[in-house]
Amino acid sequence: MRDAVAPSLAAWQPVLIAIASAASVNDNDGAHDLHHLHRVWTNAEALMAAGSGADADADPLIVMAACYLHDLVNLPKNHPERATASRLSAARAVAALAAAGFPAARLQAVAHAIEAHSFSAALPARTLEARLVQDADRLDGLGAIGLARLFYIAGQMGSALAHALDDRAYALDHIVVKLARLPALMQTAAGRALAGQRLARLLAFRDEFALEWGRAP
Amino acid sequence: MRDAVAPSLAAWQPVLIAIASAASVNDNDGAHDLHHLHRVWTNAEALMAAGSGADADADPLIVMAACYLHDLVNLPKNHPERATASRLSAARAVAALAAAGFPAARLQAVAHAIEAHSFSAALPARTLEARLVQDADRLDGLGAIGLARLFYIAGQMGSALAHALDDRAYALDHIVVKLARLPALMQTAAGRALAGQRLARLLAFRDEFALEWGRAP
Repeated sequence: MRDAVAPSLAAWQPVLIAIASAASVNDNDGAHDLHHLHRVWTNAEALMAAGSGADADADPLIVMAACYLHDLVNLPKNHPERATASRLSAARAVAALAAAGFPAARLQAVAHAIEAHSFSAALPARTLEARLVQDADRLDGLGAIGLARLFYIAGQMGSALAHALDDRAYALDHIVVKLARLPALMQTAAGRALAGQRLARLLAFRDEFALEWGRAP
Repeated sequence: MRDAVAPSLAAWQPVLIAIASAASVNDNDGAHDLHHLHRVWTNAEALMAAGSGADADADPLIVMAACYLHDLVNLPKNHPERATASRLSAARAVAALAAAGFPAARLQAVAHAIEAHSFSAALPARTLEARLVQDADRLDGLGAIGLARLFYIAGQMGSALAHALDDRAYALDHIVVKLARLPALMQTAAGRALAGQRLARLLAFRDEFALEWGRAP
């Protein structure tokens, strides 16, 4: 799947940013804006740099394209068709990349990495590039930024901050219901290590939160 | 201002909760819902219990009424008339309390504590009760819950999570622009001590956030 000469990542990055910006679906959404896309790509670069063995052999152009275009179609967490959003994003990304002259032999690999990144889509990540993108995106849901995004999204949806731990309507529950499962689901060794560190911070936050919440009649 | 026999806090609490619930302005607002009111009252109780000297002589019924009714009128942080909300809340609280048979001699003290709790109103807190309510409310803006509320409110407003520290459009800046100033503005010694601890956690979070944010092109 590699060309003889690797295309320049630096040349493609502004094109990918332009495609993502033109989609404009994430205006006024600080949890899924361009900064999120940059962070996911930065995470993926770190995972590739830390990778050993099979994890070290990814095609960075495929990874970068999928990182920047994985949220082209983004439906809210409480949208009934949310599980289809990653497939719609993949289709839109392929069309935009083809129009921009992206190497045709890599298009399907980008599409697969975008489709498979989604937690709600629950598709298996079949390639190293897809595993890297999935890990890089999930890392942005953990740690301090993950915490900020968690409550930001709760504010968008108008849910309560916390309360009973068995109720999906409460934002804090997201830490236990979903985020605490992520480290074990990580696809790369470097991703698993980072995810464990970030989850530990989230759980420490959760303990402080519960202490401050105190008696809630 | 004290009656010979202190009215029962336990008898008034459900009445205050009913008044706050009937106002219904904070439906779908997890940062200003009934849980927030309970936490502010819990904070005030802790401050009264920790108080020494002049801080120990508050009228708890006035404090409790102001805690539960301080957000009866709540305008968004980006609303042009936000600075008037605490006066409107005070007027509405006095009317509702009078109708419910609240001790008339305490009404103005409740009104003052509600008016003076607001950061944006910038009114001096002239009574111990007003100082306690102000501190108790501000404590809920610090620490883990304060952090959650910060990003929750950013999500409601659709602002970006963070970026340049000199821009009020970014949620994280709220930590430096406002929250870091709160401990020094605390009105009670116990509030100042608690606020310092909670701010330290917020600043530690901010450091982690900045590390994870990393390179932001």
